[in-house]
Amino acid sequence: MFQETFQQYLAVIEKYLAQMPWGKDKLSESMSYSLVGGGKRIRPVLALASAKAVGGDPEKILPAAIALELIHTYSLIHDDLPAMDNDDYRRGRLSNHKVFGEANAILAGDGLLTYAFEFLADPVLCQPERQLRVIREVAVAAGKNGMVGGQVLDIAGEGKKLSLAEIEEIHKAKTGALLTVSARLGGILAGGSEEQIEALTKYAQALGLAFQIKDDILDVIGDSETLGKPAGSDQRQEKATYVSILGLEEAKRVLHAQIQGAQSALKLLDNRAEFLGDLAVYIEQRQH
Amino acid sequence: MFQETFQQYLAVIEKYLAQMPWGKDKLSESMSYSLVGGGKRIRPVLALASAKAVGGDPEKILPAAIALELIHTYSLIHDDLPAMDNDDYRRGRLSNHKVFGEANAILAGDGLLTYAFEFLADPVLCQPERQLRVIREVAVAAGKNGMVGGQVLDIAGEGKKLSLAEIEEIHKAKTGALLTVSARLGGILAGGSEEQIEALTKYAQALGLAFQIKDDILDVIGDSETLGKPAGSDQRQEKATYVSILGLEEAKRVLHAQIQGAQSALKLLDNRAEFLGDLAVYIEQRQH
Repeated sequence: MFQETFQQYLAVIEKYLAQMPWGKDKLSESMSYSLVGGGKRIRPVLALASAKAVGGDPEKILPAAIALELIHTYSLIHDDLPAMDNDDYRRGRLSNHKVFGEANAILAGDGLLTYAFEFLADPVLCQPERQLRVIREVAVAAGKNGMVGGQVLDIAGEGKKLSLAEIEEIHKAKTGALLTVSARLGGILAGGSEEQIEALTKYAQALGLAFQIKDDILDVIGDSETLGKPAGSDQRQEKATYVSILGLEEAKRVLHAQIQGAQSALKLLDNRAEFLGDLAVYIEQRQH
Repeated sequence: MFQETFQQYLAVIEKYLAQMPWGKDKLSESMSYSLVGGGKRIRPVLALASAKAVGGDPEKILPAAIALELIHTYSLIHDDLPAMDNDDYRRGRLSNHKVFGEANAILAGDGLLTYAFEFLADPVLCQPERQLRVIREVAVAAGKNGMVGGQVLDIAGEGKKLSLAEIEEIHKAKTGALLTVSARLGGILAGGSEEQIEALTKYAQALGLAFQIKDDILDVIGDSETLGKPAGSDQRQEKATYVSILGLEEAKRVLHAQIQGAQSALKLLDNRAEFLGDLAVYIEQRQH
């Protein structure tokens, strides 16, 4: 049942992405190259499932859910740049700047970030006040005190011996904030109560941390082919991770505790939130 | 009278910018370095004066006007990057990446762009439907079919012999779209009629073109000290400009025609739009 629902959400998202009207110009080419080039689509799935969890119709919030994927994709393009992480590959394909050059990759990222707000303000969503709240929250989560700020901390921390608290601070900003706002977005746009939105927030915070711990674990125990990127890169870059600080077994234990925390946050919601509970288990067990 | 009003608008804008709460972290430092480092503030002035021109209170739309300066500033930071125009100086000071490094400059730009939408969605503006319309229009003007798209065209055109039509297409996208939406934003948020908003649009389109032609002229006849950047750089880079294609005298004539066009568009508005007419003259006569 979980896999069926997951595939349904993914199908709706991929169909929307595939039908987006792109021009034949170089910018459209580079923006769409990274956007349609795979990815787990966790953020839009989280948004759709959260809308459902508070009794809403997921399809009605689709453009807003897509905006989250646009923002995530822009952040990957900029992160991969030579001046940043200097990654040549992403999801098993050449990274954006390797195909289109650095200038176009920077601009493709800028274009995707800007486009995201066009989607969040889409009149088909038909909820001006809720949309404005969501736009503020997304801007905060993606901005200087969220994702962008986290990337600055991450770069500044390279080669340094970080504590667990420092790593958590980086992850909360760099990946946690956007994941959390993804769930909130679904809850807010679908008209959830403040109590329901708060439950989704706690769920997504735990899920976000679990997601990161699992990433760190996979970097150690996964193989490059399944991951679609070189395994063991954290260790080669001497990056402080949950595994390097806690050890593999303890990292797995903390991961499991986060999954339980995520599930327990859902108790306030009814059985429409079942998918979110299963999604947490999926994240604990994923192989890439 | 024009200079007084101009200084009043500038004072309101600079005061707002100076009071923005920045952290002591590196990202805040680099974002604010470029934002408070001078600039003509044409876009927010245009927004405030356009609100006034349709009978509104300029101060009530201030956060939205500031958003335009955030977007303009981000675009300058990214344009100056080594992968783009590779400019070491901006407004007579070191460009952002020369002070903070490339990675932080990219992220400062990302942060400013994202922050802009937080301002556009500010609840103090108290106009959810109008704000959503403005957010859509700003995203379009700043995005792939506007400013970002124009920068891609500009880079692709480097070293090529461009026609006047091609130069105009680049300018319309790269600088014209954001200037035009600045005027529209003021008109929309202040409750202007569609007719008034259309008049502001025509005014700002002519003004934007005039602004660019004047830039090209100043690059030839201005001196580096007054400009705050090296004069004659267009010629050294063999850049196609209004002056290189039309010659200096014809460029001046076209500039003047645009100023007249801008003023004539204002006829539909009453004497509250007087400042905008004077602003056009100021742009024709500016020395930097």
